[in-house]
Amino acid sequence: MEHNILVKWMKLGSISVPKMLMEHYTKIGLTETELVALLHVQAFIEQGDHFPTPELLSVRMTKNPDDCAKMLGSLCKRGYLSLEKDWDEQGIMYEDYSLEPLWIKLFQIIKKQEMEKEVEIEAEEE
Amino acid sequence: MEHNILVKWMKLGSISVPKMLMEHYTKIGLTETELVALLHVQAFIEQGDHFPTPELLSVRMTKNPDDCAKMLGSLCKRGYLSLEKDWDEQGIMYEDYSLEPLWIKLFQIIKKQEMEKEVEIEAEEE
Amino acid sequence: MEHNILVKWMKLGSISVPKMLMEHYTKIGLTETELVALLHVQAFIEQGDHFPTPELLSVRMTKNPDDCAKMLGSLCKRGYLSLEKDWDEQGIMYEDYSLEPLWIKLFQIIKKQEMEKEVEIEAEEE
Amino acid sequence: MEHNILVKWMKLGSISVPKMLMEHYTKIGLTETELVALLHVQAFIEQGDHFPTPELLSVRMTKNPDDCAKMLGSLCKRGYLSLEKDWDEQGIMYEDYSLEPLWIKLFQIIKKQEMEKEVEIEAEEE
Repeated sequence: MEHNILVKWMKLGSISVPKMLMEHYTKIGLTETELVALLHVQAFIEQGDHFPTPELLSVRMTKNPDDCAKMLGSLCKRGYLSLEKDWDEQGIMYEDYSLEPLWIKLFQIIKKQEMEKEVEIEAEEE
Repeated sequence: MEHNILVKWMKLGSISVPKMLMEHYTKIGLTETELVALLHVQAFIEQGDHFPTPELLSVRMTKNPDDCAKMLGSLCKRGYLSLEKDWDEQGIMYEDYSLEPLWIKLFQIIKKQEMEKEVEIEAEEE
Repeated sequence: MEHNILVKWMKLGSISVPKMLMEHYTKIGLTETELVALLHVQAFIEQGDHFPTPELLSVRMTKNPDDCAKMLGSLCKRGYLSLEKDWDEQGIMYEDYSLEPLWIKLFQIIKKQEMEKEVEIEAEEE
Repeated sequence: MEHNILVKWMKLGSISVPKMLMEHYTKIGLTETELVALLHVQAFIEQGDHFPTPELLSVRMTKNPDDCAKMLGSLCKRGYLSLEKDWDEQGIMYEDYSLEPLWIKLFQIIKKQEMEKEVEIEAEEE
């Protein structure tokens, strides 16, 4: 039994969360609950499930399915998450979540900070 | 400029969050906000800062320093976080946070689940 | 173009390598090339491809497909990797790689070290 | 004893390796042994040791200290690793390894691939 749990633990694996995201999620307008919801979506996507339902999220979160559905909708509307339509080999349409808008938002805020820093340095040098 | 942000991003690095924790934090009694607070503490510890103040946490979270202090106190009291006293070379006492209680709590719940599964399998076989 | 590379980078994701493995792979008898081969297998498994071929590995490594096939065979034989047979819904047999033997080997060497440490401490106390 | 190893495992933590690096290290001219050496350096840097010696690397690798020293030198000379001089508060000079050149090399090869892809798409459209 002893090593079974460690083996299960390792087989399940980990998700990598960029420290950039940990340091800046509030600055791009996310709450802790929304951040965790996005991390759950990322974990599902990495496991090959590109469209986790509100029910699935709800099992792992402190929120009920209705609140999860509302939160996912809000995250899409406010530009942290996107839904991309695609068609499989049989021509059946399916939808995939993508975290691309989140990474772009994060990229833009860091770029803005960098540019402000440069302006400050130039101002100091004058 | 272009590659600077990617380089900064990579130098800052990532934190690894075990999927075991992502799947079970609600079962061991944590909210999303508390989970994120613990991840912040983990990130600070990995960077060598073993005692992040409520003020430091507050900068990265949606909570003010007072609420962060209360949350850290509550996480310690409820057994997810511990404070270990130690003495440096000059004999000065310092305190370190440790996530050891969190990992033990998680280990125990998984062990309990495994044992229940075994009991079920045995019951089915009879 | 600018943020595209970062977005691609983030979408591709990361693999988490336990520092335990980084610190002890030589002690459990692995070379650097074998360690990297196992990390490639882990990355494929996490993406849902549980049986990467020697050809696939070869594209990412400095080895040709023949050498990759030999190395995978050797890793299985020496107990770092296992091949598990399974059957899909249509009754077709398929094979899955598993890193379970690697984690067990690592677990055992750490356990052995811990026990040796305890014996030393007891000897010192006498 | 039972949960001790898991706790040690979690406290030691993990390093995150971008899949971009796993997929392209051979294309930017690295061998598996050199890749692992760079991952060791990354792990040391993240733990706060910015200048691991060849002796330290040697303990974790299949190479002796002399070979590790040669490899580190070669990685610096060929542009995967850099040594940055800095001065501490007492004015004492110290040296820090940086993986910045590695990330830039990786960024450039992906950018080149992206541009070639765009050229191909344009050529097809004509």
